Amino acid sequence: MKLRIGIVGCGTVGQGFLECLDRKADDLRARYGFEAKITAIADPVRGNLIAPQGLDIRKTIKVLAQGGKMHAVDTRAAKYDGVPTVDIIETAGADLIAELTPTDLKTGEPATSHIVRALMTGKHVVTTNKGPLALHYRELSELARKRKLAFRFEGAVMSGTPVFNMAEAGLAGVSIKEIRGILNGTTNYILGRMEEEGLDFAEALSQARKLGYAETDPSADVEGRDALAKIVILANVLLDAGLKPAAINPAGIGSITRAMIASAREDGFRYKLIAYVRREGARITAGVGPRKLSLSDPLARIAGARNALTFDLDLLGSITLEGPGAGRIETGYAVLQDVLAIHRDLK
Amino acid sequence: MKLRIGIVGCGTVGQGFLECLDRKADDLRARYGFEAKITAIADPVRGNLIAPQGLDIRKTIKVLAQGGKMHAVDTRAAKYDGVPTVDIIETAGADLIAELTPTDLKTGEPATSHIVRALMTGKHVVTTNKGPLALHYRELSELARKRKLAFRFEGAVMSGTPVFNMAEAGLAGVSIKEIRGILNGTTNYILGRMEEEGLDFAEALSQARKLGYAETDPSADVEGRDALAKIVILANVLLDAGLKPAAINPAGIGSITRAMIASAREDGFRYKLIAYVRREGARITAGVGPRKLSLSDPLARIAGARNALTFDLDLLGSITLEGPGAGRIETGYAVLQDVLAIHRDLK
Repeated sequence: MKLRIGIVGCGTVGQGFLECLDRKADDLRARYGFEAKITAIADPVRGNLIAPQGLDIRKTIKVLAQGGKMHAVDTRAAKYDGVPTVDIIETAGADLIAELTPTDLKTGEPATSHIVRALMTGKHVVTTNKGPLALHYRELSELARKRKLAFRFEGAVMSGTPVFNMAEAGLAGVSIKEIRGILNGTTNYILGRMEEEGLDFAEALSQARKLGYAETDPSADVEGRDALAKIVILANVLLDAGLKPAAINPAGIGSITRAMIASAREDGFRYKLIAYVRREGARITAGVGPRKLSLSDPLARIAGARNALTFDLDLLGSITLEGPGAGRIETGYAVLQDVLAIHRDLK
Repeated sequence: MKLRIGIVGCGTVGQGFLECLDRKADDLRARYGFEAKITAIADPVRGNLIAPQGLDIRKTIKVLAQGGKMHAVDTRAAKYDGVPTVDIIETAGADLIAELTPTDLKTGEPATSHIVRALMTGKHVVTTNKGPLALHYRELSELARKRKLAFRFEGAVMSGTPVFNMAEAGLAGVSIKEIRGILNGTTNYILGRMEEEGLDFAEALSQARKLGYAETDPSADVEGRDALAKIVILANVLLDAGLKPAAINPAGIGSITRAMIASAREDGFRYKLIAYVRREGARITAGVGPRKLSLSDPLARIAGARNALTFDLDLLGSITLEGPGAGRIETGYAVLQDVLAIHRDLK
C-alpha cells in the first residue's frame, strides 16, 4: 500500500522533500517496502492540486525548480485556484499531511490551522514549522494523541539532524537536567568570521548573506528569536516545560564587537550564541544569549553554520550531537525521516 | 502488566542496570506505565535464582555490591546451584532476557548460546555483549526476526550513548557512506595524556590503570581489537556488511611514541585511534589504526576517555555524536533504554 501524502507549502523544504523521495524511491521500496503517492499540493504562490492517482514527482520537482506553478505540472490544477488551503487539506485523500509553510513565530499561523484541520480530519502530520510548535505544542500533541494520529517535527530543530528521533528511544528513561546548544547557523557563521578574519559584525553579516546563510531580514537570527523558538520547542517537547517564547527575552549578537571577541580569544575563550533550558527542581528556565565558552567546551568547537546540542542527563552524563542546522535537502530529509517513522509504526 | 526480565551475567553492567531500575522506578511508572519484575538472575560467580514473584531489586543491589551471592538475596537460590545457565534462561518465566556476561571476541560464547536459547524459547533479548554481535549478528537478528522477537544491543557500542536507537528512526532512508569514530576510551585517554603531559606510553597506560579505564590485561584496548569489534558491529548492523573481525587486522597505539605525537602537534595534527567503515560502490572496507587528524576534525577534539562517531550520509552530510564510551551506570542505562523500547513496542 502506498502512503498518500499531501504537501502544504511547497517552497524550499517541500521541494527538498520531493527530491529526497525521488532520489531514494528504489531504495526505500527495497529497504522498507515504502512507496509514497503525493495526492495533493497546496501552496498560495505555486497553486493547488488534488491528484488522487498521485502526481508525477519528478515533473513537479522540475517545474517548481524553474519557478513554474502547479498548473504546469497538471492542467487540472486550475480548478483548485482560490480554494482555501484548509479545504485542500480536508479533501486531499491523504494519510499524512506534510505542513511545510514558512514560519510565523508571532501567530503560528497559518500552519497551526493547517495542522489542526489535518488532525481533525484523520491525517497524520509532519511539520518543519517552528511556529505551531513554539506556541501550541501541548494542544497540538494532545489533539494528535486523542485522535491516535502521529505528529512529528524532526525538521523544526537542526534540520535533518535527528534530535527528536534520537530522543524518542535514545533518551527514554533519563531525566534531562539541561540542554544547551548552538541552534542558529547564521549567527555561528558570523561569530566565526569575526573571530577568524577580524571582521566587524556588518562585514561578517554581509558575507553570510552572500553565502545564502542570512535572510534578507536577518533580525530573527541576529536577535536570537530563531534560536529562542527552537530551545522553547526542545523544552516543551522534551521537558514538558509549557514555556511561551513571548515570556523570554533573548539576547542576540548585535552588541558583540570585534574587540570583545579578540579579548576573549586572548583569554582562551570564544563567543557563541547559546540557547539553553535547565531544570532546577520543579523550575524550568530557558534563555538565549552570547556566552564566552572555554575552548574545552564541545560547543566552542562548532564551526561555520553548523549546529549542536549538548544534553546533560542524570544516568548518562553529557552527550553532544552535532550536525547541519539548515539546508534544502537536509530539511527535506527531516520530513522523510518522520514519514518513514510513521510508515514503520503503521505496519 | 509488569515486564518480566531475566538477567544473565550480573556483574558491573547487570548491577548498573538494576540500579537504574531502582533509581527510576517511580519515574518510569509515571512516564511510561513501565514496571519491571526481575524473575531470574543467572551468574556463574554470584549464583542463580528463579523468582517468579520477582526479586527484591534494592536488596539484590546491596548484596551484590558487597560481593555477596544470590543465596544472600534469597535462600531459595541454593536449589539452583549448578543448574546450567541455558536452563535458567529457558525456565526463567521471563518476557525478556538481558544478556550481560563478559565479552569473548574469539568465540562469542557463552553469550551467543544464551541469546539463541532465549530467542528459541520466545524471549526478547537485550545485550551489551560485543562477542555475539561482532561474530554472529546476521544469524541472531534473523532468528529474532523469524520469531517476531526484539533483539537490541545499544550498550555494545558507546555504552548508553544512543547510537543504534538514534540510527533506527533518525537515519532511516539515508545511505551511510562512512562511519569513523573513537570507540575506545582507554586508548583515547592514553593518547591525550601523552600529548598533554608529554608522558610516554607506559606512563600514560599506568595512569589509565589507576583511574580504572584500563583493564588488568589492556591488550584488547591497546592493540585495537576492542575498537575493531565495535566498528564491525556498526558495519554489520547499519551497513549490512557481513564483516568478520578475524578478517581485519587492526593497528593499535603501542607504536606511537611521545616524539611522534610532539612532531604531529607542531604540524597542527593530533593522533587518534580511529575505527572506520566505508562503502565504495558495492565494496565495504573497515579498519582500525592510529591516524593524524587535523585539529578542525570534530574527532580530533574528543578528550579523555570519551567516544564519538561521525556519520557521513548522502542526504544529510556529516553528523557527529559524542558521549561516554563506558561506565557502570552508563552501560546499565543502555540496557534500560532497550528494555523501554521493547516495552513501548509491546503496547
